[in-house]
Amino acid sequence: MKIIVLKFGGTSVGSIQRIKKVAKIIKSYSKKYNVIVLSSAMSGTTNKLINMSQKISKNFADNEYDALVSAGEQISCSLLAGQLLSEGIKSRSWMAWQIPILTEGKHKYSRIKYINKTKIYKYLKSGGIPIIAGFQGVDKNLNITTIGRGGSDSSAIMVAKFFKADRCVIYTDVQGIYTTDPNKLISAKKIKNISYEEMLEMASLGSKVMQPHSIQDARLNRINIEVRSSFVNRSGTLITKRKNIVNNKIITGISSTNNDAKVTLLGVRDRPGIAASIFKPLYLNSINVDMVVQNISSDGKETDLTFTIKSYDLNKTKKIIYNNKNINFKKMIFDKNVSKVSIIGVGMITTPGVTFRMFQALAKKNINIQVISTSEIKISVLIKSNNVAKAIKCLHKEFSLEK
Amino acid sequence: MKIIVLKFGGTSVGSIQRIKKVAKIIKSYSKKYNVIVLSSAMSGTTNKLINMSQKISKNFADNEYDALVSAGEQISCSLLAGQLLSEGIKSRSWMAWQIPILTEGKHKYSRIKYINKTKIYKYLKSGGIPIIAGFQGVDKNLNITTIGRGGSDSSAIMVAKFFKADRCVIYTDVQGIYTTDPNKLISAKKIKNISYEEMLEMASLGSKVMQPHSIQDARLNRINIEVRSSFVNRSGTLITKRKNIVNNKIITGISSTNNDAKVTLLGVRDRPGIAASIFKPLYLNSINVDMVVQNISSDGKETDLTFTIKSYDLNKTKKIIYNNKNINFKKMIFDKNVSKVSIIGVGMITTPGVTFRMFQALAKKNINIQVISTSEIKISVLIKSNNVAKAIKCLHKEFSLEK
Repeated sequence: MKIIVLKFGGTSVGSIQRIKKVAKIIKSYSKKYNVIVLSSAMSGTTNKLINMSQKISKNFADNEYDALVSAGEQISCSLLAGQLLSEGIKSRSWMAWQIPILTEGKHKYSRIKYINKTKIYKYLKSGGIPIIAGFQGVDKNLNITTIGRGGSDSSAIMVAKFFKADRCVIYTDVQGIYTTDPNKLISAKKIKNISYEEMLEMASLGSKVMQPHSIQDARLNRINIEVRSSFVNRSGTLITKRKNIVNNKIITGISSTNNDAKVTLLGVRDRPGIAASIFKPLYLNSINVDMVVQNISSDGKETDLTFTIKSYDLNKTKKIIYNNKNINFKKMIFDKNVSKVSIIGVGMITTPGVTFRMFQALAKKNINIQVISTSEIKISVLIKSNNVAKAIKCLHKEFSLEK
Repeated sequence: MKIIVLKFGGTSVGSIQRIKKVAKIIKSYSKKYNVIVLSSAMSGTTNKLINMSQKISKNFADNEYDALVSAGEQISCSLLAGQLLSEGIKSRSWMAWQIPILTEGKHKYSRIKYINKTKIYKYLKSGGIPIIAGFQGVDKNLNITTIGRGGSDSSAIMVAKFFKADRCVIYTDVQGIYTTDPNKLISAKKIKNISYEEMLEMASLGSKVMQPHSIQDARLNRINIEVRSSFVNRSGTLITKRKNIVNNKIITGISSTNNDAKVTLLGVRDRPGIAASIFKPLYLNSINVDMVVQNISSDGKETDLTFTIKSYDLNKTKKIIYNNKNINFKKMIFDKNVSKVSIIGVGMITTPGVTFRMFQALAKKNINIQVISTSEIKISVLIKSNNVAKAIKCLHKEFSLEK
């Protein structure tokens, strides 16, 4: 019999009523599969616990944070197992330490290293449905750990990996991955199949359905993921390897960001290594530099350097650059009203002219492109924030995503 | 260095503000003692979790109940440890399975069998203050167990036993044990010292400060318990062995109940074994029969039988007796407006005339005694509920408890 992993997010188990609904979904799989369930905490619980810890101290200890917040999954999993039991279905909750799910790395940001399969296998063979607490683990000294916010997806994918599951279904409050954010464009369409690589770009470029590192874990372990809704019974989006996908579209989706800031250093004294001397201290302060553009200096002495960062890093960035005695520049200017719009698709590898079509479509709508950055399967442009809606609309049409 | 066990109840850690206060109390002991802390869940948490489980099913599975409610102590303990850490004090939370605290018996009603001291000793020696989750344990298969409501007191007493603690301090929301309920008699006085035996009678007769089985655990293990308030800094009540107490009072305290019901069977056909045939089915249905009185039948053929039960058991009791074909009686009458008032004191063992003084004091106030029951150190009488306040007042005065 094949194993399937079902993961339910916070809103999916956000109330007793929702838990009863989720039990029905689990039951619908249990005739065809050996089901392993992963559950997040009920929506709101984790935030409530974090708020309490913040009232204790802004620097609440990381190990106690892990002990604190992991109580949330203990609650949701025992309620869900209790619901199944009350319907006469063999089930029980499993905390990470009971399995155990071993993690390595620092508290709050641990990674799953190993999952002991013995007990869960035995339990599956006895006909039980294990409800495993997502997001949590134990280290080798039996300390409770967590694997970062949104980590229940990662838990599910690692369980799917260790148990060689046929598929991992991520139940959430959206119906799947869309060609672009349906809140921003009404004609956005649900994507049937998407490759890991495209999904990674979508995720890291602003689609919030799944965390990039979960998708990366799935990609590395070749685990088929289906993202679908626990609220409506419709097929979702399958995230799978490229060769499983028959797709006649050049572009799979469009994503956009809304908290970028642009920094421009004017009149930078140009010398070898100048970029490194600017970006190294930013890197050391955990500031992520995204797009970078450097104008060629006409006289070979001075240059203008433009880069983007997250807008919440702007004040820190300013301070670091002003205090950096290794660089000389005439003026620093900022713009917080910028956004990055990206088109993503494996189809562009084999199709020439995609860049041109994108730029032309934007030009026709009088949208000025400030910075450009590309990879094998995506093209990103930085534009004024108030142009984002217009840009998404015209690009969605240009690449026939509404069909 | 001596070990002290401090236990904090739900109201003592009922808010972040309270947790900060409790951290101060813990600190005040840490110079003189190796401190081990036991904590209950924040007040309200356990009830909220139980309510959720009840919405799932009135017969929510016992093992998942244990997993569910034990999350409450995980939250309070990690918050308390986080508070101490934020003040620069070495501390950490310890769940039962991390120690482990091994239990035996059924889920929801387990008993602590063994506490492994290795890790906690090591942690104490390193200068840390362990914050141990009360109320919870693990069985030998690593299932989470709980030891019944109010079980955190038991946890604290068992920790005190295994670690040979100098004392176990139960911090709660009252200042100690009183000669009678201060809500019922304003002149009630805090008792400085009370024996385990007296405390057991007080507890099982209606003083709600501690559960009888916790006191029994303390008595069997000769652990000195101090009950005091975490809200005001005043010495509380010491519960200790009889020979530690120098007491010139005959009576230590007065307790009363307020949910008793009296059942009288009139004209019961008298024959050997009739009492057993009435009470056995009640016992089998977990109905606790308290006081019993049987009139001698003048003709040897019929008798009247009176007994008391908890009023919430009355309907069940009626049904059981009506359906019992082994007994013949003419009429069954009930009274829910009765209460049991008891005087308790080891002093009565060596002092004659206590019973007489009690009855006389009540008679002077025209309070009619319906049923009497006595033990070595207590005398209980059943009276009309509307006479309870008057009875407590006159008995409190009769035995000079206000002094």
